[in-house]
Amino acid sequence: MIGFADRLAEGVAARGNPVLVGLDPRFEQLPAPLRDAAEPTLPGRAEAYRTFCCEVIDVVAPLVAVVKPQAAFFEQLGPPGMTALGEVIGHARQQGLLVVLDGKRNDIGSTATAYADGILGADSPWAADALTVSPYLGDDSLTPFVTTATERAAGIFVLVKTSNPGGKLFQDLTVDGQPVFRFVADHVEQLARQTLGACGFGSVGAVVGATYPEQLAELRSAMPHTWMLVPGFGSQGGTAADVAAAFDQRGLGAIINNSRGIIFAHARDEYRDRFAPNQWQRAVEAATQAMIAQLREQTPAGSLAGGA
Amino acid sequence: MIGFADRLAEGVAARGNPVLVGLDPRFEQLPAPLRDAAEPTLPGRAEAYRTFCCEVIDVVAPLVAVVKPQAAFFEQLGPPGMTALGEVIGHARQQGLLVVLDGKRNDIGSTATAYADGILGADSPWAADALTVSPYLGDDSLTPFVTTATERAAGIFVLVKTSNPGGKLFQDLTVDGQPVFRFVADHVEQLARQTLGACGFGSVGAVVGATYPEQLAELRSAMPHTWMLVPGFGSQGGTAADVAAAFDQRGLGAIINNSRGIIFAHARDEYRDRFAPNQWQRAVEAATQAMIAQLREQTPAGSLAGGA
Repeated sequence: MIGFADRLAEGVAARGNPVLVGLDPRFEQLPAPLRDAAEPTLPGRAEAYRTFCCEVIDVVAPLVAVVKPQAAFFEQLGPPGMTALGEVIGHARQQGLLVVLDGKRNDIGSTATAYADGILGADSPWAADALTVSPYLGDDSLTPFVTTATERAAGIFVLVKTSNPGGKLFQDLTVDGQPVFRFVADHVEQLARQTLGACGFGSVGAVVGATYPEQLAELRSAMPHTWMLVPGFGSQGGTAADVAAAFDQRGLGAIINNSRGIIFAHARDEYRDRFAPNQWQRAVEAATQAMIAQLREQTPAGSLAGGA
Repeated sequence: MIGFADRLAEGVAARGNPVLVGLDPRFEQLPAPLRDAAEPTLPGRAEAYRTFCCEVIDVVAPLVAVVKPQAAFFEQLGPPGMTALGEVIGHARQQGLLVVLDGKRNDIGSTATAYADGILGADSPWAADALTVSPYLGDDSLTPFVTTATERAAGIFVLVKTSNPGGKLFQDLTVDGQPVFRFVADHVEQLARQTLGACGFGSVGAVVGATYPEQLAELRSAMPHTWMLVPGFGSQGGTAADVAAAFDQRGLGAIINNSRGIIFAHARDEYRDRFAPNQWQRAVEAATQAMIAQLREQTPAGSLAGGA
């Protein structure tokens, strides 16, 4: 059984890019044809989310290796939303994509085990390939996720340094000259070493925001065996240059998330007039290819550029 | 519209006790009659969780003011589990209970808004009265929850000091002579003051483990306007004496959680032989009353003892 770290490395190398497409459906921003066709009920909206996300998946599956559904938007629609989330995860995996569920879950002891087994376990009804996890509850709250992930060749991404301005309030508190997030990073790197794959990275990764390029470089050094999931590209202001430091010499070690900039590309200035409302999928495709091209310019030498 | 802090104070005063019953269904620990009757499928198990939790609710609704379903166990069963969770929340509210959903959710910016609106908002399909929230993402991640909670007379409980051994790894890191959790506590107290009710407490509360009695006393002083949700009583080792410091002179300011010790009372030594398997509800009732009695012995003078 090939571990998550190596599956991720293979996927990124095969596609030749580290793009992670975030599936963050928001009803008001859906393409007009989908919005207009939806019943104005929770099941109706959930069905629109399902259709929308599955169509995005169909467009991006040949181009990228990983998608990241955001649990919050599905949970917002109640049980029908969660049903749609399950279907979206299943469809993405059928299309050969790796799925990182962005739930930022965690709890203590046996409750953490319930999340780990429930979302990543062998009999999981969700069966995501990886899950984002919050670190505040400490090392014993992470252990069940690491155990389950190892058993099922799944992975986790632990929040280390987030991309929002308020992230600094607790993450940047200074302890013996180091910010709190560095202590989290050191623990994550330990867990990555314990789950190391042939690719040189572990199945325990870190979420590190692209809005802080210097910290990204510093954390790359501090966590040489840790896959980084980097949000903040595009709508949050991060650029391809900002994330360049996240990669190793092979162009591995980081996946770069873009959600709104890709899935709602139909509403972006550069695509709005280029594609008709019922051609929104072509805007998704164009935006994905544009992001891939931007990242290739910044990828280190000996990189993935020829991969796809 | 009466705010969450005052609704909680009224409920606790009316019942004369601060017991919070945790609804943590685990299939293997369900009473035998429910386990035996369940179809061995996810919808079958979800139905067993729904029946079990609703029966627990019927037993405890006349005795206590608040219940706390743990999202992890429902999420573990996939979409059918989430449907059951919605029904359990709805049934508890119909029975006059306040519902704290234990989801430890959070995310950045507009995603935090999706969780806040989704779980606590006016049009929420879940419509919990309060939600547990993780602080690692900082102040701007808490703001949407505070806004929504204020609008809908709901509340949140922010993780400050958790009851698990590993909680200390990051929470107890020392910054200028103070542990990190004190910085979180100070921020929570600020938010509590901003959402102050007539009872003297705010609608932003804190999760503070009962396994650290000295820290409980210290945090009571540091957060005089903050409702504390105290886990760790019973199966995690906390006693009524350990939590005494969490209350103010009126016996308000804290709700004390017990999950397994109440809902799985049928399997406890003191009740196993006293009640037949099909009388498991009476074990739940006896365990709830025993916990109420234990807490009354430790409640400060001028307290809630005569309330119910």
